Amino acid sequence: MTATRRQYRPEELRLLCRSGSYSGQTAGVVDGYVQANLAILPLEFAFEFLLFCQRNPRPCPLVEVLEPGLVAPKCAPNADLRTDLPGYRVFRNGQLVEEVGDIRNYWRADLVSFLIGCSFSFEEALMHGGIRLRHVDLGRNVAMYRTKRLCEPAGRFHGPMVVSMRPIPMHQVELARTITAEFPGSHGAPVHVGDPASLGIVNLEKPDYGDAVPILDGEVPVFWACGVTPQAVALESKPPFCITHAPGKMFVSDLRAAGSGGASPNR
Amino acid sequence: MTATRRQYRPEELRLLCRSGSYSGQTAGVVDGYVQANLAILPLEFAFEFLLFCQRNPRPCPLVEVLEPGLVAPKCAPNADLRTDLPGYRVFRNGQLVEEVGDIRNYWRADLVSFLIGCSFSFEEALMHGGIRLRHVDLGRNVAMYRTKRLCEPAGRFHGPMVVSMRPIPMHQVELARTITAEFPGSHGAPVHVGDPASLGIVNLEKPDYGDAVPILDGEVPVFWACGVTPQAVALESKPPFCITHAPGKMFVSDLRAAGSGGASPNR
Repeated sequence: MTATRRQYRPEELRLLCRSGSYSGQTAGVVDGYVQANLAILPLEFAFEFLLFCQRNPRPCPLVEVLEPGLVAPKCAPNADLRTDLPGYRVFRNGQLVEEVGDIRNYWRADLVSFLIGCSFSFEEALMHGGIRLRHVDLGRNVAMYRTKRLCEPAGRFHGPMVVSMRPIPMHQVELARTITAEFPGSHGAPVHVGDPASLGIVNLEKPDYGDAVPILDGEVPVFWACGVTPQAVALESKPPFCITHAPGKMFVSDLRAAGSGGASPNR
Repeated sequence: MTATRRQYRPEELRLLCRSGSYSGQTAGVVDGYVQANLAILPLEFAFEFLLFCQRNPRPCPLVEVLEPGLVAPKCAPNADLRTDLPGYRVFRNGQLVEEVGDIRNYWRADLVSFLIGCSFSFEEALMHGGIRLRHVDLGRNVAMYRTKRLCEPAGRFHGPMVVSMRPIPMHQVELARTITAEFPGSHGAPVHVGDPASLGIVNLEKPDYGDAVPILDGEVPVFWACGVTPQAVALESKPPFCITHAPGKMFVSDLRAAGSGGASPNR
């Protein structure tokens, strides 16, 4: 997310991933394009998982869902979802069994790929709007927390909403709300401002995912619905087989992010 | 849609349907509540049909999708989708086999119910906004046309968008656009204004569904995406089994329609 990092075009980065030459994080290396969380499930689970996303659009904004077996999404027609991410995690019965750079060996005709919006687009917009993001300044992952706010369940899929937290100076909270509200495809406006306890978060210094960041005087913690939610929920239901992107290693699409002079990822 | 018709509360009307005492149209008899098109498909088709709706939100705005076998939607928890509509159509392999007032005999544990927004909510809002609707004045069904504009396909589901047409006085077209844009759960703003040929409509006097209405001097035809689209598409794919509401006999939910002092049907 820092201005000094080498920038790639989306297809350039995807081809480097495909050849095994890039296996790093995707934040900040392809500014201005929609990135997406990836979750892959067998067709048997696809209806209920799609229904879960439809019922929970704030944590699970769908960028695109592919037909069974397909690997080239419309949001990047030349891409191959089996090779073009920097890293993948393979799960059996909800347990991580392998982290790999290529899932062609695992591919089956009944696998359905879900691309779900992530917060990178709105983070870029926040920074363009003059709001500093501490986790970016510190080179850390954003802090994420399981909350006591339950998602609307769908069939076998149920669980709590996961939120990300960013400390925002008091006088910029409204600005942050306004900017992110314009990104319904990337979780939209905050789900809560100020009181971690009201979300059931006991200790901000111990995030459930990502890294803790300090909150300074004059700042308030601001919470957004997080794209880790559907993954956490998918794994809690212990499907026999599931593949996700590795943390921070998102799918980079050809869609221009809203606020980057292009269309919003959401229709 | 006329002020002189007897008004019911949603549950009152549903119970009359359940007991077989009401089998008429639902337009204009429960003003202020969200009504929905109903499509019921076997689970085997549910993922692809949900994906079709997700990819085509203008003609297919989802009000709610139920888990397999369930008949009580969240938008009307006391309702039973098998009995509470005034009429149903049963299809086998895309062919109409029966029109009935109750589908309990047809019910199976693998059936998935889709409730899809209809235009009644925005028609009420148009009339409240001072725009007269000719088909209402004439006591006819709205005129609907298959277009040459193709929906985004999803698996086995594909087909043209169906639109409804309402003649609007030239000076009220912008007002009509503004009012309906506030109803994303009921098809939203017009998809086209003015030229039927650009949609592939040859003759406005011969609608594919509903009734023709005259267009007077100073009026232009305004076209909206229509909730008949998903039904037409579902039947074209000839699923072995499918149930829909009978034309004009919608499901009446407990949700207040937008513009009626309540929440929008869409989240």
